[in-house]
Amino acid sequence: MKLLLATRNAKKLVELRRILAASTDIELVGLNDVPPYPEAPETALTFAGNAVAKARDGARETGLPCVADDSGLAVDALNGMPGVFSARWSGRHGDDQANLDLLLGQMGDIAAPDRGAAFVCAAAVVFPDGEEQVVHGEVRGEILTAPRGEGGFGYDPIFLPEGFDLTAAEMTPEQKDAISHRGKAFRELAELLVSRQMS
Amino acid sequence: MKLLLATRNAKKLVELRRILAASTDIELVGLNDVPPYPEAPETALTFAGNAVAKARDGARETGLPCVADDSGLAVDALNGMPGVFSARWSGRHGDDQANLDLLLGQMGDIAAPDRGAAFVCAAAVVFPDGEEQVVHGEVRGEILTAPRGEGGFGYDPIFLPEGFDLTAAEMTPEQKDAISHRGKAFRELAELLVSRQMS
Repeated sequence: MKLLLATRNAKKLVELRRILAASTDIELVGLNDVPPYPEAPETALTFAGNAVAKARDGARETGLPCVADDSGLAVDALNGMPGVFSARWSGRHGDDQANLDLLLGQMGDIAAPDRGAAFVCAAAVVFPDGEEQVVHGEVRGEILTAPRGEGGFGYDPIFLPEGFDLTAAEMTPEQKDAISHRGKAFRELAELLVSRQMS
Repeated sequence: MKLLLATRNAKKLVELRRILAASTDIELVGLNDVPPYPEAPETALTFAGNAVAKARDGARETGLPCVADDSGLAVDALNGMPGVFSARWSGRHGDDQANLDLLLGQMGDIAAPDRGAAFVCAAAVVFPDGEEQVVHGEVRGEILTAPRGEGGFGYDPIFLPEGFDLTAAEMTPEQKDAISHRGKAFRELAELLVSRQMS
């Protein structure tokens, strides 16, 4: 089975390929491997809403089963924000450093135990026959007061997963995948795809 | 009765004096009229929590009944944020323009009917004998895509109150007081103070 991974985020694409490749023999293609199609903006107010919308677009436009995710950091003290706004928190889309700096500034007066947060992922698959599935993954942790580590992307350097002494940016890719929100969601998605292949 | 208004925000002080003066003959003094005391940072995660903390500090340190408020803009699409972070949303405390620009940027992809919001105020009074009261005021409206008007402060230029064609920054001070979150809360507080004076 050939599967389209509908994301323009190069680092996320590498991560998703790695997670899915570890558990399936599905052939993955990216948006650069298919004819371009107009992509709708992410305007839903839930992770699942955005993930499904992107996966629907991809399946409809390419005729391939399409997987998409929407992920973000839900900070307790900010009522679950940045949430679906994680990638554009600073008002500019995809500026990881600006987003992270802004969040650190906003949390400047907030002390433990009010620095709790969760990375949340919704992953959707839409098949050309119209079948849709959405799965979720989450990892809890806390927001540090300064970045640590060079790996990962997004808010990884300021997120300390519960039960670990390493930030998500200090872990190896395999360590991160094993506990991450996207790791959890995409392993569940892979199981679902495998069982569909076999049925 | 002499009453301390515990706020360092000069524009808010003018607004609160105006609202309270309209309904009571209480003598209002500001933080500049009393010996300086250390002010705790606003670290509570609710408006009421911050308002009460500030009013307690003022009453304890000066021996005067003390009134304080905490107010902010609760945007539906942001799960009620900026909320208690309204004055430091950009990570810098009190930079109205930076806060407003950031919010407009974050809301860039969000269309009506998802642009609803409310201005919310919690006003607290703490008496030297330890009695405490908290009242709330709220006004619903929507977030515009560009600022309008030169009056008011904070997010007033991008907030269109429900049922009005003028932003809070285009209204006269009296129009704004009549419908605003702080107007509602402080009129209720004034009633409460007057009834205490008479009892």
